[in-house]
Amino acid sequence: MSTAGQVIRCKAAVAWESGKPLSIEEVEVAPPQKNEVRIKILFTSLCHTDVYFWDAKGQNPLFPRILGHEAGGIVESVGEGVTDLKPGDHVLPIFTGECKECAHCLSEESNMCNLLRINTDRGEMIHDGKSRFSINGKPIYHFLGTSTFSEYTVVHVGQVAKINPDAPLDKVCVLSCGMSTGFGATVNVAKPKKGQSVAIFGLGAVGLAAAEGARVSGASRIIGVDLNPSRFEQAKKFGVTEFVNPKDHNKPVQEVIAEMTGGGVDRSVECTGSIQAMISAFECVHDGWGVAVLVGVPNKDDAFKTHPVNLLNERTLKGTFFGNYKPRTDIPEVVEKYMNKELELDKFITHSVPFSEINKAFELMLAGEGLRCVIRMDA
Amino acid sequence: MSTAGQVIRCKAAVAWESGKPLSIEEVEVAPPQKNEVRIKILFTSLCHTDVYFWDAKGQNPLFPRILGHEAGGIVESVGEGVTDLKPGDHVLPIFTGECKECAHCLSEESNMCNLLRINTDRGEMIHDGKSRFSINGKPIYHFLGTSTFSEYTVVHVGQVAKINPDAPLDKVCVLSCGMSTGFGATVNVAKPKKGQSVAIFGLGAVGLAAAEGARVSGASRIIGVDLNPSRFEQAKKFGVTEFVNPKDHNKPVQEVIAEMTGGGVDRSVECTGSIQAMISAFECVHDGWGVAVLVGVPNKDDAFKTHPVNLLNERTLKGTFFGNYKPRTDIPEVVEKYMNKELELDKFITHSVPFSEINKAFELMLAGEGLRCVIRMDA
Repeated sequence: MSTAGQVIRCKAAVAWESGKPLSIEEVEVAPPQKNEVRIKILFTSLCHTDVYFWDAKGQNPLFPRILGHEAGGIVESVGEGVTDLKPGDHVLPIFTGECKECAHCLSEESNMCNLLRINTDRGEMIHDGKSRFSINGKPIYHFLGTSTFSEYTVVHVGQVAKINPDAPLDKVCVLSCGMSTGFGATVNVAKPKKGQSVAIFGLGAVGLAAAEGARVSGASRIIGVDLNPSRFEQAKKFGVTEFVNPKDHNKPVQEVIAEMTGGGVDRSVECTGSIQAMISAFECVHDGWGVAVLVGVPNKDDAFKTHPVNLLNERTLKGTFFGNYKPRTDIPEVVEKYMNKELELDKFITHSVPFSEINKAFELMLAGEGLRCVIRMDA
Repeated sequence: MSTAGQVIRCKAAVAWESGKPLSIEEVEVAPPQKNEVRIKILFTSLCHTDVYFWDAKGQNPLFPRILGHEAGGIVESVGEGVTDLKPGDHVLPIFTGECKECAHCLSEESNMCNLLRINTDRGEMIHDGKSRFSINGKPIYHFLGTSTFSEYTVVHVGQVAKINPDAPLDKVCVLSCGMSTGFGATVNVAKPKKGQSVAIFGLGAVGLAAAEGARVSGASRIIGVDLNPSRFEQAKKFGVTEFVNPKDHNKPVQEVIAEMTGGGVDRSVECTGSIQAMISAFECVHDGWGVAVLVGVPNKDDAFKTHPVNLLNERTLKGTFFGNYKPRTDIPEVVEKYMNKELELDKFITHSVPFSEINKAFELMLAGEGLRCVIRMDA
């Protein structure tokens, strides 16, 4: 029996207030409106961004809200005007969109869509400014336009990547955000050449995805930088060949790296968001050709500061957002890379819990354990 | 009668002390040693860098010295080991070199040769640490390894670009430094696509050469930024289509440019060396794809400072040195561009004086008049 056009009642994990465990509730999910898609989520994984907005320290609190943005699912029904997708399509919802019409979407170089660029403060759909989620008629806010901590969710078509139906959704769901962000930062932006050296600042999931990008690119040396030495052992599985803990040295880490490499690394990727790490990541690249790429999101009052001669000596400094991938155009190709074994994902998935135990995923992340915990919606 | 192997007596303009008019003297020019070339200079032009080191404010004073580094001439004789050049070759001496053996020379991306990178403090030849110039046996210091304010000079072979003998040396001499620096910053580093907008900060000779690069690239809008409105009329001849004087606005110039262009220019090139202009040049480029290129040399205590979100929004910040041209490999091709009328040079040459009146060239530059003054050595 088709559910198209009907309100669907299903389970969702609702964040009622900041920092309190999520509560599994029965919610009503309205049918998709114009340019929207309703998706049955099969797997979702937890990313730090979910935790930031759940914790809501330094963020605008918006509750009750259904969090979640890394996920894989199947299209249940589509709204008016949706021609690219049909029920049954396998998809990844993405936290930032691609309208395919604005100047950014028309540019080969940008993925910062004017219409659907990430908006962490928005809790409703852009079509009518209303939520598609409710409990007893009372609206529950969306998160990043994805809200994947629900058995069904409604997403703008511009935020949906249609992927190979053979791809295992319990693995490729992590490409919705973190793994693509790190991997793309290296392969699309830093672009190391075969045999070059790459420094990775921060060995969490995004940093290790950046390291995976360096491995795939044929980097000869991958130097991991982290304040937490317990991350070094794990990072070896991701091709990291050398480790530097800034705490072990009484000079700036950029000087340590310059000494290790005869003047600096060829490429660096900064995945912590610490302003000091950003400056070090820039200043540790070799003059003449070094490229530093910033991924981590800084505090809003931070200032990046360097002597301009560091730039004039032919270094390049770039930032990236979602690995410079266009969600609809590029993410299906990244899934293909996984299918062709050009990119490893399984090693990022260190934990798995049934939906009923979603709060365990939060506990693991807060304890700094593992990389990605996949949440099984049907369990 | 060959002069090879002999000391040549000829005229040179000697700077005896900082800020005092040059004095035309008879000097002895020793024969070229290993990997050196002796060149008969036919034309030389005056660049700001000559004036900085003549004035020597904030620079290490090194006198007596023969200044000059933009020039064209003919090889008179070559030292041991020189196989690329022979007497009669038409050449441009260049203030920075290309050994063709170091990591920078072997990299496709760099022109910052380890052996022959610009060294403003060095006053002797690297082969033996001695000067090839003397007056009555008393050595006179070299400048940038070029010292072109002399009828004959001795230059390391790595600092000599062999060019098309049909090229008029009184025109292409300006490619030795300033024009290549500005032109290359745009075409090699900023790389605007046809139809894109480009902002140029500073409308002196280097900035106008950057504008020429934008014109040649097919830029749709070339926005000139300068504090001196008298430069705007002249800049029109260089394809600059719009002008912004930061003094005319009570908000930062990057905001003015963003408003003019619907969010920012596609590319910017900073040619003043002012730290505030550097920051504005970076912050005025469009998010998603904007590229800012720094050319101007800052004061040594300046700090480049910006909010990292300006980077994370997919802007790129790069610096360049000598337009990223490798002196020996690339400059002959730039001369060909002039020969093929792909690049205009004549409009940069606003004045010409005989060698005996070289101090007039200094006076013109100090008065801010004109762009390049070519000094005719045989006159």
